[in-house]
Amino acid sequence: MVVNVTVWGENVHERREPDVRERYPDGMHGTIAAGLERVLGDRVKVGTATLEAPSHGLTAEVLAATDVLTWWGHLAHEDVDDAVVRRVQERVLAGMGLVVLHSGHYSKIFRALMGTTCTVNWRDDGERELVWAVEPGHPIAAGVPVPLVIEQQETYGEPFGIPAPDELVFVSSFSGGDVFRSGCCYRRGLGKVFYFSPGDQSYPVYHHPDVQQVLANAVLWAAPQHPVTTPLTNHNRPRPSP
Amino acid sequence: MVVNVTVWGENVHERREPDVRERYPDGMHGTIAAGLERVLGDRVKVGTATLEAPSHGLTAEVLAATDVLTWWGHLAHEDVDDAVVRRVQERVLAGMGLVVLHSGHYSKIFRALMGTTCTVNWRDDGERELVWAVEPGHPIAAGVPVPLVIEQQETYGEPFGIPAPDELVFVSSFSGGDVFRSGCCYRRGLGKVFYFSPGDQSYPVYHHPDVQQVLANAVLWAAPQHPVTTPLTNHNRPRPSP
Amino acid sequence: MVVNVTVWGENVHERREPDVRERYPDGMHGTIAAGLERVLGDRVKVGTATLEAPSHGLTAEVLAATDVLTWWGHLAHEDVDDAVVRRVQERVLAGMGLVVLHSGHYSKIFRALMGTTCTVNWRDDGERELVWAVEPGHPIAAGVPVPLVIEQQETYGEPFGIPAPDELVFVSSFSGGDVFRSGCCYRRGLGKVFYFSPGDQSYPVYHHPDVQQVLANAVLWAAPQHPVTTPLTNHNRPRPSP
Amino acid sequence: MVVNVTVWGENVHERREPDVRERYPDGMHGTIAAGLERVLGDRVKVGTATLEAPSHGLTAEVLAATDVLTWWGHLAHEDVDDAVVRRVQERVLAGMGLVVLHSGHYSKIFRALMGTTCTVNWRDDGERELVWAVEPGHPIAAGVPVPLVIEQQETYGEPFGIPAPDELVFVSSFSGGDVFRSGCCYRRGLGKVFYFSPGDQSYPVYHHPDVQQVLANAVLWAAPQHPVTTPLTNHNRPRPSP
Repeated sequence: MVVNVTVWGENVHERREPDVRERYPDGMHGTIAAGLERVLGDRVKVGTATLEAPSHGLTAEVLAATDVLTWWGHLAHEDVDDAVVRRVQERVLAGMGLVVLHSGHYSKIFRALMGTTCTVNWRDDGERELVWAVEPGHPIAAGVPVPLVIEQQETYGEPFGIPAPDELVFVSSFSGGDVFRSGCCYRRGLGKVFYFSPGDQSYPVYHHPDVQQVLANAVLWAAPQHPVTTPLTNHNRPRPSP
Repeated sequence: MVVNVTVWGENVHERREPDVRERYPDGMHGTIAAGLERVLGDRVKVGTATLEAPSHGLTAEVLAATDVLTWWGHLAHEDVDDAVVRRVQERVLAGMGLVVLHSGHYSKIFRALMGTTCTVNWRDDGERELVWAVEPGHPIAAGVPVPLVIEQQETYGEPFGIPAPDELVFVSSFSGGDVFRSGCCYRRGLGKVFYFSPGDQSYPVYHHPDVQQVLANAVLWAAPQHPVTTPLTNHNRPRPSP
Repeated sequence: MVVNVTVWGENVHERREPDVRERYPDGMHGTIAAGLERVLGDRVKVGTATLEAPSHGLTAEVLAATDVLTWWGHLAHEDVDDAVVRRVQERVLAGMGLVVLHSGHYSKIFRALMGTTCTVNWRDDGERELVWAVEPGHPIAAGVPVPLVIEQQETYGEPFGIPAPDELVFVSSFSGGDVFRSGCCYRRGLGKVFYFSPGDQSYPVYHHPDVQQVLANAVLWAAPQHPVTTPLTNHNRPRPSP
Repeated sequence: MVVNVTVWGENVHERREPDVRERYPDGMHGTIAAGLERVLGDRVKVGTATLEAPSHGLTAEVLAATDVLTWWGHLAHEDVDDAVVRRVQERVLAGMGLVVLHSGHYSKIFRALMGTTCTVNWRDDGERELVWAVEPGHPIAAGVPVPLVIEQQETYGEPFGIPAPDELVFVSSFSGGDVFRSGCCYRRGLGKVFYFSPGDQSYPVYHHPDVQQVLANAVLWAAPQHPVTTPLTNHNRPRPSP
């Protein structure tokens, strides 16, 4: 069964900042998409969509054909149309998988699904991040070294303003001493959500093969087990027959 | 330490429908407030607020003086001002307790905090509800019979469109055969949320002493442990000194 | 990838009681094994093992070749050798899946893995059981009607002496009014455990096609994602290189 | 309401090793007990018990008068009598609180209650530990700085062989780069269990005022809400009357 993935990227840093463009000539979304294809081959069919497209590239048709959506945003969270956010949320609650990346913690869609501030403590100091699997038997940790080493990264630190994850897979440390729940699984409605914090425009994190492995694992984990139709509704249900 | 409670009631059924007014001459909010005072005495200071008041009675001042807010709504969810909902949500994320009652499952505030559909299956058939403590050691179950028997009730049935509770305290059965997760605890931000499903305008459930015991327990459980100030924020934090 | 399943059955009722033998001429383990083969075909390779065999049929070799073990016991929990229990527990903690059935709630292996009493309230009254998916998007609920109807069953009632499940999939009601957390997922060490309560020697529950579907789903869910080697150990680990 | 606490200490390092005796002249148990009294005053009544006493000081009478037991052991886990372990486990399942400290992760009682290996990765390198509250609204985090700084400590690193905590309160980093789930809450039966990893015979951690604050908070959190009588049992229960 092929998993249809749409990789969504804000694509603002990449257009504005030469160093980011050099690091990610195809956009971060392009690198993320290529990484999924490299690891998963014909188990996935990957498309991309960006902010500047009509409906941010997330029309009803695109979403209806998407099993798993990945989301990277940062500068332009507020520019994402509320109607698109509602459509994505509805699709997640109907069963689509969602993988939220790095600064996407503060995206409208993640905040809408979590109900909390989704805030972090951060600094940009080029620290080393070590990503530790605390559930090494989890499918998202399969084939990932313990620890996964990222030489330079933006630092995210606790407390992270999220609901307790349904499954906590990774916890990171940074050389400055901060810790962060860097891999968090949620069930929401009929869908699954995974948040993964490594990844930033200023560092080549999405080229890292182990990070690509995590993202590939996350896509398989988040893929729906049932046909995706509609979310649950309020329903006047008769008695089960006696 | 006295817990300051605000009991919020939509107060629409009570004004429109003679049978509801007869059942709850002081409004459901009045009965709920009196029940809390009966069980908790001077451990609580209880006020009420309703939809028709300016800001629905939930001004910044009222919320700033509220440790635990209880919420009952049904017909008029959509009439609740979004600005008030945001203010309540922010206060919960800063540490205020919230106890959501019965048809409040579909209120804006509960849906905003949960991020899911919060939908139920229902019918109004006067069935007997048995409320079973599945965590009998939980403080919200203290002093509550197993099962708590409600002779007639609106039926709510699974699947209930909520995130998995952080603590599941009660599960109900109905004489028609449905089950429902009727007592659900959540931590959200610095605050705590409890959802309790028994209670309906058409039945005298809030006069039931065991139901009043549950609500009193829930208020104590949800009361903040820390001073309530502000929610978490995104924060550029320097390195911990070495 | 073929999942190697071993279906363990105590096989005491079947040998002693004519009505049970008539209901399950191949033993409950035989019926369970045939059900898995019917639903999963060549996705599984199923063997059986019973109490009366040397090492209860669970030698180191058998376990080393088992991806998922299912467990049914009732009368003879105390006759299961502690050394075999330890071996099974070690294998689960190393990654093998375990599916515990019905009265297996009080087996040595389930109690050892849970750490609690694992006790239930019960009566044998031929009540109807309705099994409701509370997480209808969960893979173990795939293809299972909501509710799953079992015309006659032994009644199990809350409180059930288990740790809160990591994922609660099913909750049952019985016509007498009891409720029971009938489908419970746990991660323990590198392995996964699923408890499913329907099934009894006195009723033909394991012939029920929907029950067989649940058991098949559970086997796929519990199958290890990584090669199963050894459990985690205490380990003197040097610093990650700087 | 006064909480009756028994502080259990293995008291082997203290008797054998001069440097430990100098650091903890009253034993680690003595320092822990004094810290609880300092923070909680007349809210607690604290006794101590050690391995070398008959029944390790944990007779049925002592346990029957204990609301919360704290446990520190290291060298002599295997010398703890299985009958005492069973008695403590039964008392926890009946509602007594248990606070397990540091190397107590590998004690018989913690392993029996968790069902997993409870193993850690460790080294003794005098690293700095930073203990971060990931649930800053949790009562066990009240009054504790974020982060709590321990200048020198034995390092514990993930993966930690525990079930996912019901509530994860603290996560630590070490200067070498390891992370550890250092504050973990569990409900087991009618009782509550808290594991807290800071604390070692080679460092003066139990003299640290912030660590003493955590232990005091944990004792209040773990204190039973109901009278402690017996654990749940298997029970043949008649139908609720119709």
